[in-house]
Amino acid sequence: MPLKKSWVESANSADTPFPLNNLPYGVFATDDLDPRCGVAIGDMILDCQRAEEEGLIALGDAPLFDVPFWNEVMEEGPEAWAALRDRLTQILEEGSKDREAAEKLLVKQSDATMQMPFLVAEYTDFYAGRNHAFNVGSLFRGPENALPPNWLHIPIGYNGRASSVVVSGTEVRRPWGQLKGPNDDKPRFAPCERFDLELEMGAIVGTASDGPVTVDEADQMIFGYVLLNDWSARDIQAWEYQPLGPFQAKATATTISPWIVTRAALEPFRTDTPEREVELLPHLKDTGPMLYDIELSVSLAPEGGQPTTISQTNYSVMYYSSAQQLAHHTTAGSPMTPGDLLGSGTISGTEKGTLGSLLELSWGGKNPVQIDGGERTFLQDGDTLTLHGHAQGDGYRIGFGDCTGTLLPALSDPYARG
Amino acid sequence: MPLKKSWVESANSADTPFPLNNLPYGVFATDDLDPRCGVAIGDMILDCQRAEEEGLIALGDAPLFDVPFWNEVMEEGPEAWAALRDRLTQILEEGSKDREAAEKLLVKQSDATMQMPFLVAEYTDFYAGRNHAFNVGSLFRGPENALPPNWLHIPIGYNGRASSVVVSGTEVRRPWGQLKGPNDDKPRFAPCERFDLELEMGAIVGTASDGPVTVDEADQMIFGYVLLNDWSARDIQAWEYQPLGPFQAKATATTISPWIVTRAALEPFRTDTPEREVELLPHLKDTGPMLYDIELSVSLAPEGGQPTTISQTNYSVMYYSSAQQLAHHTTAGSPMTPGDLLGSGTISGTEKGTLGSLLELSWGGKNPVQIDGGERTFLQDGDTLTLHGHAQGDGYRIGFGDCTGTLLPALSDPYARG
Repeated sequence: MPLKKSWVESANSADTPFPLNNLPYGVFATDDLDPRCGVAIGDMILDCQRAEEEGLIALGDAPLFDVPFWNEVMEEGPEAWAALRDRLTQILEEGSKDREAAEKLLVKQSDATMQMPFLVAEYTDFYAGRNHAFNVGSLFRGPENALPPNWLHIPIGYNGRASSVVVSGTEVRRPWGQLKGPNDDKPRFAPCERFDLELEMGAIVGTASDGPVTVDEADQMIFGYVLLNDWSARDIQAWEYQPLGPFQAKATATTISPWIVTRAALEPFRTDTPEREVELLPHLKDTGPMLYDIELSVSLAPEGGQPTTISQTNYSVMYYSSAQQLAHHTTAGSPMTPGDLLGSGTISGTEKGTLGSLLELSWGGKNPVQIDGGERTFLQDGDTLTLHGHAQGDGYRIGFGDCTGTLLPALSDPYARG
Repeated sequence: MPLKKSWVESANSADTPFPLNNLPYGVFATDDLDPRCGVAIGDMILDCQRAEEEGLIALGDAPLFDVPFWNEVMEEGPEAWAALRDRLTQILEEGSKDREAAEKLLVKQSDATMQMPFLVAEYTDFYAGRNHAFNVGSLFRGPENALPPNWLHIPIGYNGRASSVVVSGTEVRRPWGQLKGPNDDKPRFAPCERFDLELEMGAIVGTASDGPVTVDEADQMIFGYVLLNDWSARDIQAWEYQPLGPFQAKATATTISPWIVTRAALEPFRTDTPEREVELLPHLKDTGPMLYDIELSVSLAPEGGQPTTISQTNYSVMYYSSAQQLAHHTTAGSPMTPGDLLGSGTISGTEKGTLGSLLELSWGGKNPVQIDGGERTFLQDGDTLTLHGHAQGDGYRIGFGDCTGTLLPALSDPYARG
């Protein structure tokens, strides 16, 4: 599929993240406008609230864009999602008869502040990258016990904390936590010393379920994808995670990119999961290509310094797709809700420059990573971490918009008030 | 404190769970009335929605009872909680001048169906019973590795699935899951064979936080308590829980009792946590009695049979209070939200008849428990499980209302539709 042309000129360049082929969904505000839903086109945003108020978009009976989040659109279901995408394409395509009306509803992205694009119902994080699981397993338990016996049979996941999910640009505060090194007699309560990133994709569940769903049904339930940085406190994790898994180590923040790239926009980029090392049980088997060819990179900029790319990889290296994760998520009968967010797990290739966390890049802190003006094992205060991602089409890109966050120093006294 | 007398006669008996001293909050519906907030008094319910509509309750500026959940009251904060309790006491006490107006707003509990009393924002389950942790640790890892090294320093917890929390009376369907016995070559997908209960208390967070809170602050954030049965699939858990904790094993359902017993009603029953085996770090230290003397029991009735009490224990045996759990929950900065539900962890004493799960009662399935007309290692289809709980005052009880659920057989094909 080639570039689809829009009358918004900036949407027609080969390197814009937001051509007409993309049409990702976000929530924005400006000095004049309260937070509201919008769709990115080139370097502009089409104001969906006003588009609906003025009759340019009319979907379903009730208004969908009188609230500053996309959950109500999700709840309309896949047919409505397709109808909305068709209508937005019609409004924004070259030669559209709606151009005059729509031009008045465009806002410059440079004038807008992005907000959380949806209300996170619940947040689940998986551990579905074969290389990451092996690397982290080696570091925590040694290479002989690296990959748990269940790993090749189940997409291992755990429930995270929805209230800690924030939008790109939100500052992240280095947490305090209970720490105990291998040579310490007893634990202490102190600021985290091994604060890390995790490069992930997030899948957003768009439709509800109330019982087990198949992998195909799960694929159809996914509304779209975002980039996701699951900030992780490795020293807190090492002390707390046995026997019930990570808890406070993952509770500080999870940052997502501001634009939901729809499943529809990613259709041309589907790829297969890798060959299975052991056969999956029937309810988790691949039924078609359900990963995506999405180029990903991570850059790290020290305070006042230039960003250095510390990792480059691709979403297609994952062992389990989001559809497989979602199918597994429902096996015991737990209802899923529009707005549920599923983290893919850390995306790591096999080479050093393709690893999705500093834990792996520095091999547990032993081999520092070179950056502008210095080196890093784990993150330092003032560091800005940015995830980048796009699918490369024929003369166009489906971009995600950056997923960025700056690390603030820990509070000197976390219980001081006022 | 003695029994406070009400003009509702059934509230004045020594064994009603709902005297004027209690005033627990629920959501009910009848054939004539849509779901709405109510307060239990004796064998009646005071309809809070109509009480507000008719001006009998007037709290804050906006209506609080135009929605069928208690989250809006929670969001008003502790001063409003106290004012509401004072006003309800005034309306319902002996000699009240509001008696005539309030009598018309009473509904018989026997005519009402109870609903979820609040919207569960997020659900966290802890592992804070010393005996349970030792017992389960022994069964999963052997007695020498039973208590993890962190256990005496942190109230260990994990995030659960809020969408799976249901109100007492909801039927629970035996789940399917991935199972692999120690002697199996590979896993299979089949109905759970070791389905279990967990006797817990649930603490409901009533006020928001945005950063670490102290144990004292955490105690003040708690709106009330419910009985909680965290249904658990032990065979799914054994295969999946390493390294990231329980996931589908805990996803089928968590049942709560229908009435929120407020922290205010439980004040006379505060007790200390047990003596510390190692000193807690300052941010988790006890600052006063924060457990409660609540007598608990579990009964199991086979289909068509009589209930047998299989366990009797007391909430006061826990090692960590809900306030300590909540304080720990916030250490890394995760915001808490009104409606967050914290499971206490399984409440087990040290004797056989005081254990809070069949896993412990039958010692991993080895020693069946005798019940009416048979015996049990784990639950069988058709079994009805009921948790009972009350605090015993001087001539009155603060009761919770039963927390009950019946186990339905697994679906023959979980993916059959229609």
